[in-house]
Amino acid sequence: MTLDDSSLQKYGFIKRETLGSINIDPLQTGGLLTEAARQTLVEWGDGYSVCDFCGGILDQIKKPPIHDFVHKALPEFLGCDEARVTNGARESKFAVMHSMGKPGDWIVLDGLAHYSSYVAAERAGLNVKVVPHAGSPEYYLDPEGYGTAIEEVTKESGRPPVLALVTYPDGSYGNIPDAEKIASVCHEYDVPLLLNGAYCVGRMPVSAKEIGADFIVGSGHKSMAASGPVGVLGVSEEYAPIVFRKSIYSKVKEVELLGCTARGATVMTMIASFPEVVKRVSNWDQEVENARWFSARLEDMGFIQRGQKPHSHDLMFFEAPGFYEISQKVKKGRYFLYKELKERNIHGIKSGLTKYFKLSTFGLGKEKLGVVADSFEEILKKYENI
Amino acid sequence: MTLDDSSLQKYGFIKRETLGSINIDPLQTGGLLTEAARQTLVEWGDGYSVCDFCGGILDQIKKPPIHDFVHKALPEFLGCDEARVTNGARESKFAVMHSMGKPGDWIVLDGLAHYSSYVAAERAGLNVKVVPHAGSPEYYLDPEGYGTAIEEVTKESGRPPVLALVTYPDGSYGNIPDAEKIASVCHEYDVPLLLNGAYCVGRMPVSAKEIGADFIVGSGHKSMAASGPVGVLGVSEEYAPIVFRKSIYSKVKEVELLGCTARGATVMTMIASFPEVVKRVSNWDQEVENARWFSARLEDMGFIQRGQKPHSHDLMFFEAPGFYEISQKVKKGRYFLYKELKERNIHGIKSGLTKYFKLSTFGLGKEKLGVVADSFEEILKKYENI
Ligand SMILES: Cc1ncc(COP(=O)(O)O)c(C=O)c1O
Ligand SMILES: Cc1ncc(COP(=O)(O)O)c(C=O)c1O
Repeated sequence: MTLDDSSLQKYGFIKRETLGSINIDPLQTGGLLTEAARQTLVEWGDGYSVCDFCGGILDQIKKPPIHDFVHKALPEFLGCDEARVTNGARESKFAVMHSMGKPGDWIVLDGLAHYSSYVAAERAGLNVKVVPHAGSPEYYLDPEGYGTAIEEVTKESGRPPVLALVTYPDGSYGNIPDAEKIASVCHEYDVPLLLNGAYCVGRMPVSAKEIGADFIVGSGHKSMAASGPVGVLGVSEEYAPIVFRKSIYSKVKEVELLGCTARGATVMTMIASFPEVVKRVSNWDQEVENARWFSARLEDMGFIQRGQKPHSHDLMFFEAPGFYEISQKVKKGRYFLYKELKERNIHGIKSGLTKYFKLSTFGLGKEKLGVVADSFEEILKKYENI
Repeated sequence: MTLDDSSLQKYGFIKRETLGSINIDPLQTGGLLTEAARQTLVEWGDGYSVCDFCGGILDQIKKPPIHDFVHKALPEFLGCDEARVTNGARESKFAVMHSMGKPGDWIVLDGLAHYSSYVAAERAGLNVKVVPHAGSPEYYLDPEGYGTAIEEVTKESGRPPVLALVTYPDGSYGNIPDAEKIASVCHEYDVPLLLNGAYCVGRMPVSAKEIGADFIVGSGHKSMAASGPVGVLGVSEEYAPIVFRKSIYSKVKEVELLGCTARGATVMTMIASFPEVVKRVSNWDQEVENARWFSARLEDMGFIQRGQKPHSHDLMFFEAPGFYEISQKVKKGRYFLYKELKERNIHGIKSGLTKYFKLSTFGLGKEKLGVVADSFEEILKKYENI
């Protein structure tokens, strides 16, 4: 191809089709920008905007107040000693794994861990031992499983794992494991624990210290109303010198962060949304109530909510026999649901899914959730006699 | 601290002081957003916006046309076989170094390499051998130096370096080294070459293939009018299976990219600006002419331009004896220049510098460059008889 006017035509400004729809995709509900963040994007959008007043260390920039955000507000928010802004939850996890282990070492992951935890471990050359969950319908994670996994690794490889990780909550069922117990089990074996809070930091109250986690990871674009890619990483005093070690070449640059991470608008949108994020976290009880109310409405339609019950998170997994039956009968087959929802301006259940799907109720409020539940009912009714 | 209204007050939306100034900071001139990119930020700003239509592989998203951008337009633009969008130039470099070497291996860097090349090598556990430059005033980089460095590494460590890197141009003097010759020297020893084009991709015409480079790296927020952090990575057919290897856990996810990279607005701003970026690259001759014209004006004031002469890039390094003399005499000392420029709405020479500084003329056009040169003259004159 040549890069001429005709081949370039499809680039430039592109409209976003899903803008303005009710989006129940768990990836999307916590990343909706606040108005302050939206204004910030335009103000700070240019390239290296935040670097105009940088003396060489991104997180030391005083104006805008990146320093205070990273070194005062974030540690308080995460309940940790030292914090940094990264390019995302997976980048935070990789930084920790890559600092704590060397190729050939082992790491312990929960059976519901996100793929990015596996891929981060793989990139760092670490072997993975999985703590199994109990399977359907609850997918319960037994904290004692961490002890067993640690012992197995030690027996098989001759040394304990360099790190354990728990997904809090997981991205499939929205289950909140007993992280406090897991931390204490891991610490019995002197294994540090990383709390993957991609779905909690910015949504629900959490404190690494209260849980006893040595590391805490969050995702800005997933749960902190920030424009991605951006994430956070909190580390305890004990491990901060390892993870945030300085370069032998440039004494102000942190090796694991490659010198700088969110060097532009992304960190500024995180800062812009932060006051509202702090506020919404304190309203978490209402979010849980909404999730339960929504779940109950779907169960009334014959759907089955998998995972913890009663549920304590906005991310939920449903089995929907009613939708599945329709998909077996109608012409468009399994795409009917996506189409029906699209017509109702609802987005977020992957095209082609009918029998099992996950969704999130976060930030939607009862009114929009009511529209979604009503739509589900309408669709079931529409195809009742097919 | 507690996160209450008073401590949170400093976050939220923050004004950007330098907005609207004439910015001659080399970090900033190529990262100014186009109007299309600015609109795109608002349209695609929310969290994981681009993931609404993702089937599991970011660079395969058809709508918006990320697939075509990454797999058709970018390889053509970079002159390479395979391309990806990353979180920045340093992240691209680290991905290559981390795939090509293992801890303890060696890499060869040019003497003008950016700190992030060193830090990326350090993070990957690689040792660094430097090809020296000839020092002041030209900082010439002899391509044969790569042969010497490669031979030294082989002799000292028992095996050749896993990679050589050349900064094209470098970030201090804006020198354009003879990369074609360097590639052929490296290839004589079967050492692959990475072209760090943070200051060329998106500004000037470049082709990895024409140069003979095996890898090419660019920075979206620095030189492609994109909102960061975002970068590009081009790889030859030969090395693509190594750098873009898939995960053993998730067969669609690329390990070195941790599954996904620019999962949000950043890639969309790069796509938005791309047509204009292609166009501006074809106007590069005019940019070089502007740089030379500006340099000549400064030399008329008794300043000395260091680095290649005549210069072939917008990034230039100056020695300014006139400013230095003033700084020795005035009360505010070395901060006078920053202050005088600020009063004239000119930003980008670091506060406190007077004797030596770098700047960039990119995209400013003769009119604004004239304002800058006139301001320099005015300032010199103002303090003439002090
Ligand atoms: C549980 C969990 N952890 C981590 C991630 C990755 O987040 P990020 O995009 O910030 O790397 C996700 C994303 O889907 C997730 O669901
Ligand atoms: C020569 C050079 N290479 C690489 C970089 C890093 O670019 P990025 O921020 O995209 O990692 C810079 C940034 O200043 C640079 O000057």
